[in-house]
Amino acid sequence: MGKAQSLVAGIDVGGTTVKIALIDTEGTIQLKWEIPTNQKNQGAYIMQETAASIQAVLKQESLSIHAAGVGAPGFIDVENGIISEAVNVGWKDYYLKQELEALLHVPVVVDNDANLAAGGEKWKGSGAGASNLLAVTLGTGVGGGIIAGGEIIHGEFGMAGEIGHIQSVRENGARCNCGKYGCLETVSSATGIARLGLEKVQTERRGYLQDRLSEQGTISAKDVLDGARAGDPDAESVFEEAVEHLGFALANLCNSLNPEVIVIGGGVSKGGAFLTDAITRHFKRFAIPVIGEKTKINLAVLGNDAGVIGAAWLASKTFPEGARQLYER
Amino acid sequence: MGKAQSLVAGIDVGGTTVKIALIDTEGTIQLKWEIPTNQKNQGAYIMQETAASIQAVLKQESLSIHAAGVGAPGFIDVENGIISEAVNVGWKDYYLKQELEALLHVPVVVDNDANLAAGGEKWKGSGAGASNLLAVTLGTGVGGGIIAGGEIIHGEFGMAGEIGHIQSVRENGARCNCGKYGCLETVSSATGIARLGLEKVQTERRGYLQDRLSEQGTISAKDVLDGARAGDPDAESVFEEAVEHLGFALANLCNSLNPEVIVIGGGVSKGGAFLTDAITRHFKRFAIPVIGEKTKINLAVLGNDAGVIGAAWLASKTFPEGARQLYER
Repeated sequence: MGKAQSLVAGIDVGGTTVKIALIDTEGTIQLKWEIPTNQKNQGAYIMQETAASIQAVLKQESLSIHAAGVGAPGFIDVENGIISEAVNVGWKDYYLKQELEALLHVPVVVDNDANLAAGGEKWKGSGAGASNLLAVTLGTGVGGGIIAGGEIIHGEFGMAGEIGHIQSVRENGARCNCGKYGCLETVSSATGIARLGLEKVQTERRGYLQDRLSEQGTISAKDVLDGARAGDPDAESVFEEAVEHLGFALANLCNSLNPEVIVIGGGVSKGGAFLTDAITRHFKRFAIPVIGEKTKINLAVLGNDAGVIGAAWLASKTFPEGARQLYER
Repeated sequence: MGKAQSLVAGIDVGGTTVKIALIDTEGTIQLKWEIPTNQKNQGAYIMQETAASIQAVLKQESLSIHAAGVGAPGFIDVENGIISEAVNVGWKDYYLKQELEALLHVPVVVDNDANLAAGGEKWKGSGAGASNLLAVTLGTGVGGGIIAGGEIIHGEFGMAGEIGHIQSVRENGARCNCGKYGCLETVSSATGIARLGLEKVQTERRGYLQDRLSEQGTISAKDVLDGARAGDPDAESVFEEAVEHLGFALANLCNSLNPEVIVIGGGVSKGGAFLTDAITRHFKRFAIPVIGEKTKINLAVLGNDAGVIGAAWLASKTFPEGARQLYER
């Protein structure tokens, strides 16, 4: 690791840990570590501790950075680097960019963690190089990030990419946290798939899902995918319902956005090719033929590193090495 | 009109006429006119005739331009200014940018006409100033243009904005020109609304729609809107079906894109506030609450000028000669 190398810090703030990486201009992680998220005093010490940790590592390794990118959950005023609200962390109207710039003496850019995960997969993951990419996270909810023309799409007040709230069940859908009924995440998130599985077993009381319920007292999304893969008809029926809704929503987004690639991440994506093959099958039913044919549907590959890599991508792009002098003046 | 003014040419190529305007840096049309589209020899003379017409006007008026923007129908390689295919005009793999730059001696930028209509409404129409805008044209088909972060979204191979092919009728939909069944434009375009009206009257054989059918031998979208406005229950039912599909598709797009404003244009938009009120009602049912509340749904106001104004917007933005002079003044 030569001293002449130009590095940026990628920082991914979560409710439990702050992930930190020093990343070169090629997007390769040179060093990475994490510190606990200090929730005290509405998260007031998190950036101080993060900056101190970065400065200690830089000193020890005789390295320097020329910029930093930060991903945070919640609603963010991206232009000004202000966290409007991040419930998991405790921040409210928090001037993150201003504070971290004062601490690190380098320019800082801030964005939503889901958007930066999309940026990470675009830069170094399974969407490598795509200027037009849709990242989908199938976890507790359904999250998303949209990159179009090489840029993160934010929308008018930062809600772009909230694909989990695409209306999917038109009538009598389950209630969603957003206040609506029948959102995509009520049927295609890990939580949604588990809920559908539980409803199914409560009606049918048989087979693989009943066995899992008797053993565990509950049904997980993994149980549904495992059962479907093993050919259990009830698990298959639930899985098909979940992936049909996903295929429908993603096809309609792609009919309007025409990305090169969709990257599927989150816990449910552990379903692997079994999952993406099923999504692709439904996607092709609902997509404009040429879009159904050409849009790639890939599994995310960066896992927990997507956020820090995406943060570094945005920092590198926003503050290219050559711009440093201009900033410091 | 002072000679020092910095002007661009906005050009909108259609199957019948080429619309041309000289537009200042504020987006005000200083002169506009049109020439017939010369379809001879696969449209080989169109740009020559357009350039000659512009040069004659510039000479006569002692004016000059510093850039030109061109909107054309069909598939376009925007980066290189090549028309891949424009069936209405006859062009195929036509190097429009290269040819027009050689003729006019100013830089030229080319984009799809629907995208530029969105740009026009953004610049000087009912989306004035919005950085995030969705333009919808309800005509023979359903067209669209998406502007996000101030830029036209093109997608991977220029199909972004093709919102007419969002799947709307999930089962047993009507066949669409794109090869799929149940696309938005099979139910919410002028053609789609007329088709639904005709199907209705063939079943019900009564009321306003039957009267129109008896008189005219057919049913138009206008008949459906007029009947619905007058309270005819069959016309109301068809109208509600068409606007519910629109509200659903637009809400789901906005759940992902979060534009500030949706601009509704095309022949069906002559339905005015009666139409936008109905779309808004369904939009709010399917949108994330804060998006349902804050997204404006406006009627387009530029009519046939949207294309030339959008072409001038793109030219001014891409080649900001005029903007600089304005700034320096």
